[in-house]
Parts: sequence; structure tokens; C-alpha cells
Amino acid sequence: ARPRVGYFYAGKNPKGIISQKIRSIKVSEIKAVPVVIREETSVYDAIVTLFLEDVGTLFVVQEDGSLCGVVSRKDLLKIAIGNADIKQVPVSVVMTRMPNLVTVTLDESAYDAARKIVEHQVDALPVIRPMEVDGKQKYEVVGKITKTTIAKLFVELGKE
Amino acid sequence: ARPRVGYFYAGKNPKGIISQKIRSIKVSEIKAVPVVIREETSVYDAIVTLFLEDVGTLFVVQEDGSLCGVVSRKDLLKIAIGNADIKQVPVSVVMTRMPNLVTVTLDESAYDAARKIVEHQVDALPVIRPMEVDGKQKYEVVGKITKTTIAKLFVELGKE
Repeated sequence: ARPRVGYFYAGKNPKGIISQKIRSIKVSEIKAVPVVIREETSVYDAIVTLFLEDVGTLFVVQEDGSLCGVVSRKDLLKIAIGNADIKQVPVSVVMTRMPNLVTVTLDESAYDAARKIVEHQVDALPVIRPMEVDGKQKYEVVGKITKTTIAKLFVELGKE
Repeated sequence: ARPRVGYFYAGKNPKGIISQKIRSIKVSEIKAVPVVIREETSVYDAIVTLFLEDVGTLFVVQEDGSLCGVVSRKDLLKIAIGNADIKQVPVSVVMTRMPNLVTVTLDESAYDAARKIVEHQVDALPVIRPMEVDGKQKYEVVGKITKTTIAKLFVELGKE
């Protein structure tokens, strides 16, 4: 007979329950608001935006709104200590560019996103949705998943 | 009668099982190796160390080995775009200093560490152990917990 108190998980150990939960949470439920800049933005202005918006990663879009790059604090720090005039150099010079970006879609799981962050050693992933521009396949940035998003989710799961 | 298949958790729902697991993992089990520099190190050398060691946060120690500060990519980026000569300025000028540091101990949990990271909006926590120097209470850095540590643990928990 099935016990009347508590819950019963047939054939599931605690590890199974935890991984099932982590894989059931969708990117769409946890994504944060991305800060986007244009590719003509100077490195200096990008750094100022980073501080004003208090984020670690900026997403770079083209005039049509499609994602073309990602720029991290690390990219900006590297050029800032060089001899370049960072008020003249555009972020397009230092950003990681499509199609080399690691991205995630709305229907992927929190687990998928965290795995990509860890495996590709990046701080943040753009959450993308396909968009067609003049017959070309491009991508719109509809959110971001960062290491902070994962840490917040972890804390949420740990609350009793 | 207790069922013979699967597991039975009296009075525990999935959320309880997950939070119990997250709170049972100790900092001592998951801590990573910290990169330490001396407080006399120049900002420029600190940035170079950051790239060479491929880390986001450096821990600053005094001559006796005790922790005196933490310096982040954000701190370094802020001074790098200023007019200071970063080869002359020591990191002690830009670091967050004891006793304003957010720290964690070996016996605290992964949950405690993640909560501190999220609440205090820091990238990394030094794992500290008390040490006595000339009758004064100081702290040794025996590890670090970063957002990356939490993301890796999250992925580990999500593996089936």
C-alpha cells in the first residue's frame, strides 16, 4: 500500500529528483534583461555603460536589431591596458562575433544554459530568437543567462 | 508497509530534498584554488596576473600571509580607464579592504556561499581560516568560492 504521509517517488533517488528539477526549469522562466549596444559604440562608452548598468557583459546589435557580438569585462580590460585610444576604437574590434557566440534559446533548460557557461568558460549567454531580415536568418536578443542568474536560481532552490 | 521499490522520504517534498542537498554540501568540498598577490603589486601587474591565471578575482595578502583585500575585474577596469599610471599605483589603492570583505568558512554550506555572493553582489568569496599573528587575530586564505564554482556545482547536480 502507498503510505499516507509524505511523498513517494517510484524508482527515483534524491539525485534523480534534483536533476529532474534542474532540467525542468526553462530559460524563459529565469532569463534576465540584456544590456545592448551598437557595434559603432566606442570601447570607452562601452565601459561606461558597463558601470552605469552594473553588468558584466554587453550584447552588441546591428542597426536592424540583430545580434552580432558579445563583449565582456575581460575583452574591455585587455584593450584598456593597451596603447589604443579607447575613445576611438569601436567595440566591434574587441567583441566575440557571430557565429562564434555561445547562445541559448527560450525553450532550453537552466541545466543546458549552465552547462554551456561552464564548458565554454563564458560569463553570460544571450537568449536568442530567430528573426528574418531581408530573407536572411538573423537572431534577436530577448534576454540573457549569466553566472549570476544561475547563482540566484541555486539560492532559490536552497530556500526551505 | 514500506514499498520495496524506489525510495521513500517521509514528509519531504521535492523542494525539501533539493534544499537539504544544497545545504549539506560544504564549502570545503567545492572550494577552488585562490590566486593571491601582495598589496604592493601594481595595478598593471595585477591585470597581467588576472589574464595569465585566467581568473576574475585576486586575493591580496600581507607579508605574514594574512588576507587584507580582494580585487575584482571591475575594480581594475575602473582604474585602467582613468588617468592613473597603473604601473605605479599599487592594488591596495583599488581593492576592497578588510574588514569590509565578504568571506566564507570551510564548514559553511554551498547554499551559504551562494547566498552571500548574490546578496552582496560579488563575483567571489575568499574561504578563510583564523590564524594568530603576534597575538592578533588574522585570516589565512585557504580557497575561494566564485560564481563559476556555483555554476559547476549546479551542472554537477543536474547530471543524471
